[in-house]
Amino acid sequence: MSETDDERVARATLLRISEPANSALIEHVDRVGVMQAIDDIRGGASIEGVELEGLRHRLQTASGAADLEAAARCGARLVSPGDEEWPTSLDDLAWVGRASFGLWVCGPLSLAEATATSVAIVGTRTATDYGASVAGDMAYELAERGWSVVSGLAYGIDAAAHRGVLSAGGTTVGVLACGIDVPYPGGNRPLYDRLISEGLVVSEHPPGSSPQRYRFLVRNRIIAALSLGTVVVEMAFRSGARSTAAHAAAINRHVMCVPGPISSAMSGGCHRLLRERPETVLVTSAAEVVEQCGHMGDLAERESGPARTRDLLGPMVARVFEGVPVQKHATVSGIATATGVSLSVAAAALAALASAGLVECMGDRWAMTTAGKRDRRARSGARSDQLELDWW
Amino acid sequence: MSETDDERVARATLLRISEPANSALIEHVDRVGVMQAIDDIRGGASIEGVELEGLRHRLQTASGAADLEAAARCGARLVSPGDEEWPTSLDDLAWVGRASFGLWVCGPLSLAEATATSVAIVGTRTATDYGASVAGDMAYELAERGWSVVSGLAYGIDAAAHRGVLSAGGTTVGVLACGIDVPYPGGNRPLYDRLISEGLVVSEHPPGSSPQRYRFLVRNRIIAALSLGTVVVEMAFRSGARSTAAHAAAINRHVMCVPGPISSAMSGGCHRLLRERPETVLVTSAAEVVEQCGHMGDLAERESGPARTRDLLGPMVARVFEGVPVQKHATVSGIATATGVSLSVAAAALAALASAGLVECMGDRWAMTTAGKRDRRARSGARSDQLELDWW
Repeated sequence: MSETDDERVARATLLRISEPANSALIEHVDRVGVMQAIDDIRGGASIEGVELEGLRHRLQTASGAADLEAAARCGARLVSPGDEEWPTSLDDLAWVGRASFGLWVCGPLSLAEATATSVAIVGTRTATDYGASVAGDMAYELAERGWSVVSGLAYGIDAAAHRGVLSAGGTTVGVLACGIDVPYPGGNRPLYDRLISEGLVVSEHPPGSSPQRYRFLVRNRIIAALSLGTVVVEMAFRSGARSTAAHAAAINRHVMCVPGPISSAMSGGCHRLLRERPETVLVTSAAEVVEQCGHMGDLAERESGPARTRDLLGPMVARVFEGVPVQKHATVSGIATATGVSLSVAAAALAALASAGLVECMGDRWAMTTAGKRDRRARSGARSDQLELDWW
Repeated sequence: MSETDDERVARATLLRISEPANSALIEHVDRVGVMQAIDDIRGGASIEGVELEGLRHRLQTASGAADLEAAARCGARLVSPGDEEWPTSLDDLAWVGRASFGLWVCGPLSLAEATATSVAIVGTRTATDYGASVAGDMAYELAERGWSVVSGLAYGIDAAAHRGVLSAGGTTVGVLACGIDVPYPGGNRPLYDRLISEGLVVSEHPPGSSPQRYRFLVRNRIIAALSLGTVVVEMAFRSGARSTAAHAAAINRHVMCVPGPISSAMSGGCHRLLRERPETVLVTSAAEVVEQCGHMGDLAERESGPARTRDLLGPMVARVFEGVPVQKHATVSGIATATGVSLSVAAAALAALASAGLVECMGDRWAMTTAGKRDRRARSGARSDQLELDWW
């Protein structure tokens, strides 16, 4: 269902007066619709959790119609939730109360189509030669495999990634933290121009908006949401790229990091993320990125819960399964010791086995279910030699 | 309890006739003792699972007494399980049926004391400058922190690690895959000499034994067992260092890998291990190695189970705990979606929470226990803002 012209003007007004990711306002718009929300802001009523002062102040000078005209002058359009071009992937931001009201889009492609099979490649603005070359090569190879690449049009890793895609003739999307008509940073103006003519540039901010620190952070959630996974190529310990990774993790996207020399400060943030966040995956090639994100890219598999469960039933889970006693109960610690895995691996494996119905948790002890015993009997013929290290 | 001279001779004979990690023979020696085991091998009786032909053949020419004399001539001694100098860490190999019958040891230190707080640093023989420098620096810094370093006296990473320790005046132990009196490889003779005079060289193989492929693989289990954790600095996809890591994992030691440029084949094996084995930890410094292994090094903490459980109750587990409904039951998948973490993270967190008694598993659904509800109420005052990304 497409919006009416009035709704579209109201939405442009909303984008003008509210900074993105205002969760209380998002909730209110969800409930009453965009037209009523503007009326409520203008009127005297209070909206729970929404600081109305600033919104009303901006509303005095805001004109959605003028913003739509300004956008049209530079070739941009407003894409609203529910539009054909709106990527449903963005709706996942609602899980964490950070949905987007709409995006200004400029370029010759459909945003939904351009991001259907996409990965974000992000990282430091002060990339090393190593990082820039890895980002460019990875983006090039992803493009060759038919994947599109989303990034932030910043210097360094972002620019290298966009350029890598363009040199392969692929699709790349730049998400700005300023107005769609503001080519920031200035030095990337040629890149901005190429994205406008061959790819896409998008922004939540109304035409003419300047880039601000907060806007980079909320912009990063759009980069994360538009892609099936985020690859951080290089980042220092404190880096905006970490917020992209955090947003990606928060909405269940894959988070990947490229390693580098431990002597390189620009790989330090990647190594730290790999150490601190167990869900972060180390990747060294476009093929590994596709392997990681591919099953979500395939819409058929994306819908099936069992595919995720099956992923967990690898050799380590099978090994832990061998350590669950058939007749008795055992603690996680006992099973970890018996199978020689760490406590956390044993715990994860047992939960996976419980999801698969093979074991059950009774108080603080674990036991085999009837299905588990049946499965164990079936496996015992193919039991591997303890001295054989091939499982590793 | 020390062995009698006769037992020591019988043990030296056993080391002469049997290759290490013969699990059926280990079990038999465990049951009847080393003297009786030699008699049984010599006599007509069969020993379950033991191929006696080869043992008897070797027994015809074996002389434990002669080996003890040969060892003494080059300054080496036999260290047996139970001896004061025997590191109890080696007994962990019994968990996987790969216990050691004894070790020939040469050097001025007590093996037990020298390995009480130790890390193994291993890797490819064909190290890059980067790898050799990382291994040397890390070993140097570990030595400065009072840690000893175990390695295999091979070219490349091993040699760099030993040298790093020596240059810090620290303790380093070399484990050979040949006789204690065979300085292999020849080019490392000067290093072998320094270890003999300042550190320790150890081997399971009788004096004069040549290095053989199988012996490198079983030797690696001694390196893994003597240390609290194994750090792989560089390895190609196929590498003996992977077997050291596998042995370490099998007996519940920490497995750590150093990352490197993705363009370096010699970092390829490390990256692969980090990708494939979730229990492998990425490390970039001696401090991180100590952080990883330190709590096991501290004997007081080593004994306490709760410390391991508490490790799991980090911010991610707390976050998943927030996602468990107070009144209803929910599936792992539902909780993962609610909290925005991956299925495997949710599963691990739930198992950890179950171990802590805060949640319970009922069929394929999870619910909060009474203790969990109490804990939740206590926490709700300090609930963090959803928009805050600091937990990442």
